[in-house]
Amino acid sequence: MKTVTCTAPVNIAVIKYWGKRDEMLILPLNDSISFTLSQDEMCAKTTISISPTFTEDRFWLNGKEESLENPRIQNCLKEVRRRASKRKLEDSASDTLSWHIHICSENNFPTAAGLASSAAGYACLVYALGQLYGVEGDLSYVARQGSGSACRSVYGGLVRWYMGQADDGTDSFARPVAPPHHFPDLRVIICVANDSRKKIGSTIGMRQTVQTSQLMQYRIKETVVSRTDDMMKAIEDKNWSEFCDITMTDSNEMHAVCQDTNPPCVYMNDTSHSVAALVHRYNDIKTAAGDVSHKICYTFDAGPNACIFVPGAVVEEVVGVLVRAFPPSPTSNSVPYVTGITTHIPELSRELKNLADEDAQPCGHLKYLIHTKVGDGPRILTDPTSSLLDPATGLPKLQKEVEGESNL
Amino acid sequence: MKTVTCTAPVNIAVIKYWGKRDEMLILPLNDSISFTLSQDEMCAKTTISISPTFTEDRFWLNGKEESLENPRIQNCLKEVRRRASKRKLEDSASDTLSWHIHICSENNFPTAAGLASSAAGYACLVYALGQLYGVEGDLSYVARQGSGSACRSVYGGLVRWYMGQADDGTDSFARPVAPPHHFPDLRVIICVANDSRKKIGSTIGMRQTVQTSQLMQYRIKETVVSRTDDMMKAIEDKNWSEFCDITMTDSNEMHAVCQDTNPPCVYMNDTSHSVAALVHRYNDIKTAAGDVSHKICYTFDAGPNACIFVPGAVVEEVVGVLVRAFPPSPTSNSVPYVTGITTHIPELSRELKNLADEDAQPCGHLKYLIHTKVGDGPRILTDPTSSLLDPATGLPKLQKEVEGESNL
Repeated sequence: MKTVTCTAPVNIAVIKYWGKRDEMLILPLNDSISFTLSQDEMCAKTTISISPTFTEDRFWLNGKEESLENPRIQNCLKEVRRRASKRKLEDSASDTLSWHIHICSENNFPTAAGLASSAAGYACLVYALGQLYGVEGDLSYVARQGSGSACRSVYGGLVRWYMGQADDGTDSFARPVAPPHHFPDLRVIICVANDSRKKIGSTIGMRQTVQTSQLMQYRIKETVVSRTDDMMKAIEDKNWSEFCDITMTDSNEMHAVCQDTNPPCVYMNDTSHSVAALVHRYNDIKTAAGDVSHKICYTFDAGPNACIFVPGAVVEEVVGVLVRAFPPSPTSNSVPYVTGITTHIPELSRELKNLADEDAQPCGHLKYLIHTKVGDGPRILTDPTSSLLDPATGLPKLQKEVEGESNL
Repeated sequence: MKTVTCTAPVNIAVIKYWGKRDEMLILPLNDSISFTLSQDEMCAKTTISISPTFTEDRFWLNGKEESLENPRIQNCLKEVRRRASKRKLEDSASDTLSWHIHICSENNFPTAAGLASSAAGYACLVYALGQLYGVEGDLSYVARQGSGSACRSVYGGLVRWYMGQADDGTDSFARPVAPPHHFPDLRVIICVANDSRKKIGSTIGMRQTVQTSQLMQYRIKETVVSRTDDMMKAIEDKNWSEFCDITMTDSNEMHAVCQDTNPPCVYMNDTSHSVAALVHRYNDIKTAAGDVSHKICYTFDAGPNACIFVPGAVVEEVVGVLVRAFPPSPTSNSVPYVTGITTHIPELSRELKNLADEDAQPCGHLKYLIHTKVGDGPRILTDPTSSLLDPATGLPKLQKEVEGESNL
């Protein structure tokens, strides 16, 4: 039996992927750029074993056995095996490709976070397959065929997914554009919103936007193209203030084209808009003080949760403002309201108290906050105890139930 | 003493006015089209008296004396007097233009409705002034200088405000394009939403959209131009289904460019989006049944309240669906939940019950519903008891406090 265990990160787009030009190959209508988040707080984990004794291919996701017939998983499997067989022929290595495969995957973060579990999951699957079969070179091209934004989770730091031009998608892949510490000590606060509304899945939502929104045509042809250039320049110049402005503008434009869809795709809710307004008011204070290097910025995927990028120097005051403006529900369960990196909330200045109080919300509008940071790409776990599959049986060690979502 | 009393209607745009090309003259960036609503349920009322015995110009708005220094009111006054003096010279009529003026205005609808009180108010003021001084011809050009959308309240039925091209605004006026009964027995349901958020006023909101939204540039240059043509054709063809689709598309596009503004101008709230989704689901049922002549459509101004246009044949079932999906708060005060035209809510079909229940909201998300219809232009009230000013003193008869808002 041969076994590999890997983890892969969540990524958050700052130039959004919204709209496919090819639904089968998952080819986007524009380039996107994302930050990879730290795997210390959130990651997908996958163990893959192959053995000549296995009698069938099997797949467990978050503790539940699932069909491997899913075409997106099959695409990833076939592509990695195709590359491996090419390499094996050259190596004259043993034919492990004919062995059956057991795949066991889980996410260590709650679905409630609405975060990219499918992106992290497919990146992890493809990365682990690549390790197992000894495939070298870029795997983002393969991960893309599992879930579009998964291609960006194959690398750490700032990552760009090039839409490509080819009909067969061969030039649609991701590449790192800056390392995790490009903007030093960058933190991320995920504001997990309470929301009961039924939402349109991102695959259907983006299809409807492409089909019905006139503004979307302009986004694709004009605005997101030049904005991606502007973002690359802001990254190159390490211009944090500009990075913040562009990130918020693109998030708002994405949700604008969603609103312009027929019927409208509404992902942000009243709480989301309150968080966004708070971020703008916080930046007004920093800008007035000539302190634009401590600006912060939000971005929203296809859900109500804000993802806020925050320089480390101000992260504790920002969490303090958020907790004051969005107090926890007194009836919420015992989990801490701020999770992830340990956060010591300081006594807020009068100015920040007023900022929080200006539009303070009834308690319980946010479920909790996750304090995390930006991070590196997928990792191989060598400690055998980290394996999700029993080395004797090749079957899952434990059961755990979580579901998946997708990101942009 | 010479006295005139008039009423003027509210109007609801179906092609939105959002963005000025000249802030002083109130010149818009695009043509807009609106439906004038019936004055039976909502109107502004103005009495104007002039007398050689008055010692100063005075102005009462909703029972409170206000300054007449407001430049928008002054613009309207000066323009009507300029036209009148031109006419008087020709007529050699008596010089009533030198007499002081008393103006008393009120709206008979609650500000909470978020409806166009300034549009109705300025239309009423200008119409009454025109009557008083015997000015003939189009007054929409004058009303526009009070509040942009007021120019559309000068006429009944479907009204188009032509943006014009001239720098001095002389070609920016409204004209009726179809009478009130063009679409027979058309009803209007205003869903007044509970909302505590602070909102950006429409003047500032549209300025920020013009200054910061890239999508707005496309709206102005491309989409709203061709959509206005499409709407004129739908009106000409009496194509109700098309009218509905275009109305909703333009409302959504306006709120999309608001979302695309920096910082975002958010007017619709979670309740607004729920109402919009309900309308789409209702139309899906009518479309599936091949009954597109009974489709309905929503439009939202710079606030959370839905305005729904409904063919008379289905208005009672639509109110029934709305009341079921948005039940009144049990702690609300004694006013009826459905006001305006008497509405007998029928027993709903299973299909409509399911429709309402699919996304039913906790009670109290709507304050109340106003059932009204489309209507005609400003009216002169000849019954002396209708005057707001005492014929003996020229002072207001009664006091009543309501504030104003503006529409698009």
